[in-house]
Amino acid sequence: MNKIIIIGAVAGGATCASQIRRLDKESEIIVFEKDRDMSFANCALPYYIGQLVTEREKVLAYTPESFYDKKQIKVKTYHEVTEINDKHQTVTVVNRQTGETFEESYDTLILSPGAGANNLGFDSNISFNLRNLEDTDAIDQFISNNHAKNALVVGAGYISLEVLENLYTRGLDVTLIHRSEQINKLMDQDMNHPIIDELEKRYISYRFDEEIHQIKGNEVTFTSGITEKYDLIIEGVGTHPHSNFIKSSNIHLDDHGFIPVNDKFQTNIPNIYALGDVITSFYRHVDLQAQVPLAWGAHRGASIIAEQLAGDKSIIFKGYLGSNIVKFFDYTFASVGVKPNELSHFDYEMVEVKQGAHAGYYPGNTPLHLRVYYDKTSRKLLRAAAVGQEGVDKRIDVLSIAMMNHMTVDELTEFEVAYAPPYSHPKDLINMIGYKAR
Amino acid sequence: MNKIIIIGAVAGGATCASQIRRLDKESEIIVFEKDRDMSFANCALPYYIGQLVTEREKVLAYTPESFYDKKQIKVKTYHEVTEINDKHQTVTVVNRQTGETFEESYDTLILSPGAGANNLGFDSNISFNLRNLEDTDAIDQFISNNHAKNALVVGAGYISLEVLENLYTRGLDVTLIHRSEQINKLMDQDMNHPIIDELEKRYISYRFDEEIHQIKGNEVTFTSGITEKYDLIIEGVGTHPHSNFIKSSNIHLDDHGFIPVNDKFQTNIPNIYALGDVITSFYRHVDLQAQVPLAWGAHRGASIIAEQLAGDKSIIFKGYLGSNIVKFFDYTFASVGVKPNELSHFDYEMVEVKQGAHAGYYPGNTPLHLRVYYDKTSRKLLRAAAVGQEGVDKRIDVLSIAMMNHMTVDELTEFEVAYAPPYSHPKDLINMIGYKAR
Repeated sequence: MNKIIIIGAVAGGATCASQIRRLDKESEIIVFEKDRDMSFANCALPYYIGQLVTEREKVLAYTPESFYDKKQIKVKTYHEVTEINDKHQTVTVVNRQTGETFEESYDTLILSPGAGANNLGFDSNISFNLRNLEDTDAIDQFISNNHAKNALVVGAGYISLEVLENLYTRGLDVTLIHRSEQINKLMDQDMNHPIIDELEKRYISYRFDEEIHQIKGNEVTFTSGITEKYDLIIEGVGTHPHSNFIKSSNIHLDDHGFIPVNDKFQTNIPNIYALGDVITSFYRHVDLQAQVPLAWGAHRGASIIAEQLAGDKSIIFKGYLGSNIVKFFDYTFASVGVKPNELSHFDYEMVEVKQGAHAGYYPGNTPLHLRVYYDKTSRKLLRAAAVGQEGVDKRIDVLSIAMMNHMTVDELTEFEVAYAPPYSHPKDLINMIGYKAR
Repeated sequence: MNKIIIIGAVAGGATCASQIRRLDKESEIIVFEKDRDMSFANCALPYYIGQLVTEREKVLAYTPESFYDKKQIKVKTYHEVTEINDKHQTVTVVNRQTGETFEESYDTLILSPGAGANNLGFDSNISFNLRNLEDTDAIDQFISNNHAKNALVVGAGYISLEVLENLYTRGLDVTLIHRSEQINKLMDQDMNHPIIDELEKRYISYRFDEEIHQIKGNEVTFTSGITEKYDLIIEGVGTHPHSNFIKSSNIHLDDHGFIPVNDKFQTNIPNIYALGDVITSFYRHVDLQAQVPLAWGAHRGASIIAEQLAGDKSIIFKGYLGSNIVKFFDYTFASVGVKPNELSHFDYEMVEVKQGAHAGYYPGNTPLHLRVYYDKTSRKLLRAAAVGQEGVDKRIDVLSIAMMNHMTVDELTEFEVAYAPPYSHPKDLINMIGYKAR
């Protein structure tokens, strides 16, 4: 009987355990999770703070008990793996509640420790990270218990934007600061102006090139010299891979602490796999390293590892396309392909259209801005980005499949859109990109 | 100088004329249109009746005068071509206003006469077809002038459904009848039940296996024996290609009166092209004849003919996928691929999922029913259909690009969806189709 140990019980780990069990009823599967909860819906957390999502059982799908009852998978929460001995095929585990340390052997090891939130390092009891359900509960209770009226959100990445929207929705007076003018970095910077519009429309204060200098109680002093009072601070200042505990093993880590994996999600050690936010992998449509720490990739990795272990070696990962999307108030921002800062690796051209999302005469039409980058020589798609209030997700998903199939920009003229006035145009924006590129 | 004659000035003809002029500033282009208007937005007409679309200039983009001023293309409305002499390269034209008949020579002839509405043949002044802007104006004025309170819609194809919704929106008491139980025929019949739900929710009467037996003034007797009074009847009972005038020429017509064209939209006579609802062509993803009388195909044909005439012979038509979509009250029905009645040509399997259109915990989630048919042996996609209140267009458009690239059902597991809770799932319904098929 095979014994499989999985480190981490959130999207990657718990899904991987389930997928393995689906194909393999025999093996022993043990999952160690260093924190309180398993298998919570990470992407739901901002909306839980906003009280838009209220049913806790939909955010927290399983407990270790219900998971074991349903799938015969042992999940041990508050159990942190502190060391991996890949020669002896053992891991060292600390039970964080009792302090007890023990070793557990494995035949196959799967690493899904995720990423941790960066911390600004201030000694403050009003400042929070948001990375898991524990953090979410802490913020939620802090707001309620302290009747928090205003909040400072530090950082302007997609999680910060979602949290800001949700704090606003909950009725807090919110301020956004960011240390540079580079916000929502997966998007082309000149396509981010609706973020500013949405903030200004709601009289939400924001300051860029601004950082916290000092926090004293509720008093926050900024590098600009301004001092303001806040009831709550959310630090959304990036993440780092949870991979320190791996350093003593023979598993390769890159310079940034990510684990390189192959097309089977294998590390350099054949019986050790990795998935989720901790890995670094490759793009599908271009020859370039890719880091895409998002839910789709974690789920895809879980499936592929399960298939590999169950013996179907033909099912491999063909790489990321980098699809991502974020809602910010009335707008949607989405892109697929290489990141803006990766375009410099290519000799590219760009073509864009700004047009209503559907037929101009049909009510409710709003402008959609779609942009496509393609390789000058091969004319293959490199990146697409879209911003608007409607139909953004559709265009990016279509272009994701187009990229997956290595389509050229010219072939976009041939896309047969499902057209009726409420949905598109007889020549969709995607067709127009193709026509304009020619 | 080349002399190009185009027959028909609606979506196919007018767009083709524009596209040719874009690439060719020299040729003389003359368009003959037998009816009153040119270049109106066909798909807008039901919404114009519903007074959802009110700006007439958005429905009627050009007059012959404005078109000539902008593009130096002569459009002659009320000019019907009654005969084609392909040997002498002339057409016989009747000026329907003066009765004058004349011959006009051409170097290149382009046929875009479209389709005509079938007529039930009753001698009634309350019964209307809806095929062009003239019909629309007549219905609109009839409703206003006669203070029409109730209407009978005959037929349950997509245009009838759109008209019914719009008459209801305008405040009329509407009844739907259809001669069989086969409604909205581009959709799988068992996926049409929301049509019934939407009717019943609004107390809209409907009867299937029902036909008009007789109309006397406002009194309508049905084959079921029922007699009812109506202020207005809309006949939405199918269309036929406008190709009688072609029969005396050497241009091939199929048994149903459609014009077969090749991948250049050429008829059997090299200097005669055809596009729009009058043609019969082929599918892109399977080896089967295809008739797809919709706007996308007309626009695509217009572009390709223009490129061909301008000398770029490399741009050819690779075939239809049959993408289609219709909104009916709160629901969207869409499909792509072969029609339900064409599935019998294949040895196929079907897989389907019913799931919320986006993450279950995020508000506003509604169920989406997605179905995919694929070839048992090659596992390539044959047809997909979707019904729901949200995200239907997105899934069908993604599957359209998938079909265009000859993807297998298994490869749908690899679709990298842009995921955030308001838009999809970490494993989208399209991924789930792939996983289920395996």
